[in-house]
Amino acid sequence: MDQERFARQLTFILEADKEKNILRQTHLSGHGRRENDAEHAWHMAIMIYLLKEYANEEIDLAKTMMMALIHDIVEIDAGDTYAYDDKGLESQKEREEKAADRIFGLLPEDQCAELRALFEEFEAYETPEAKFARAMDNFQPLLLNDANEGGDWKAHNVTRSKIMTRHSKTNLGSTVIGAYSKELIDENVRKGNLSGE
Amino acid sequence: MDQERFARQLTFILEADKEKNILRQTHLSGHGRRENDAEHAWHMAIMIYLLKEYANEEIDLAKTMMMALIHDIVEIDAGDTYAYDDKGLESQKEREEKAADRIFGLLPEDQCAELRALFEEFEAYETPEAKFARAMDNFQPLLLNDANEGGDWKAHNVTRSKIMTRHSKTNLGSTVIGAYSKELIDENVRKGNLSGE
Repeated sequence: MDQERFARQLTFILEADKEKNILRQTHLSGHGRRENDAEHAWHMAIMIYLLKEYANEEIDLAKTMMMALIHDIVEIDAGDTYAYDDKGLESQKEREEKAADRIFGLLPEDQCAELRALFEEFEAYETPEAKFARAMDNFQPLLLNDANEGGDWKAHNVTRSKIMTRHSKTNLGSTVIGAYSKELIDENVRKGNLSGE
Repeated sequence: MDQERFARQLTFILEADKEKNILRQTHLSGHGRRENDAEHAWHMAIMIYLLKEYANEEIDLAKTMMMALIHDIVEIDAGDTYAYDDKGLESQKEREEKAADRIFGLLPEDQCAELRALFEEFEAYETPEAKFARAMDNFQPLLLNDANEGGDWKAHNVTRSKIMTRHSKTNLGSTVIGAYSKELIDENVRKGNLSGE
């Protein structure tokens, strides 16, 4: 039993608790309050498990779930950057890399390297696991926005062309969910929940 | 592509969103607000991944994580029952079984059976996966309570003997974490955060 190792693991676990206070722009269904990062990641991991049959390629389930669970942890330091905030997106990478150094650095060396690699893999959008996890990261707020008659899109003047850039990439992880996302977006344009521009 | 199957999966996924509104008695670290079930489950799944080396027996990681992620979903209907609320605990099983019928019943038949089995397995506390997931279910609020100088214990007049009944079972999943839990509890008694009775 390596006491220092265990202490470092617990320090990281307690630090992770702070992610529950990082608010996203998305609101919970039923026109609820703003969602936080931890809840969003929980939802994504459940979706990965239940929807894995639609992944384009075979995925390592535990790895993909863990990737989803920790993908926003850097926001404890770097804050949430809204997917359609162009100005915020410019400085996002630098802010998040610095946060990753500090936060994953709390862990023992091997687990620091492992989680950092999972985080970078998610960001790179290249492996089957990253592509499917990213698909869920796109799809989960789409489901909530659809349930809330596009409330978050209206609040941020988001247009169809803007969100299609993001959601078309869902096809990289799952053509089934990519096609359904497009349907859902078009339906929301028809309903007037989203600008058709 | 089975449209009805996909629709049922999405219905369940949207229903699960409601778990983010189910509050526990535990407060977030830093004397924060009350934690909700989704955040608690997210935290548990991360702990399962990071602390798996301390499990007494080998565990299936994805299965244990999913068990943790969905173990409280019945509380959407049944509400949260505080671990030290004897009156609530009497009716808990009946309330939760009824909720499990409805909520898992939203899923396609195979996934309904799979998640219901995971839920029952967690409850039964017998398999290596259930014992380790339950250990995390015990340990996670202990870490938060320790970080908050025992605030939740004080609010509910919880005593050492009462919580030891629960936490001694952590040993079934991990003797390392069970031993550390006992240390942490005794330290909190010494600090006056928890009644020594």
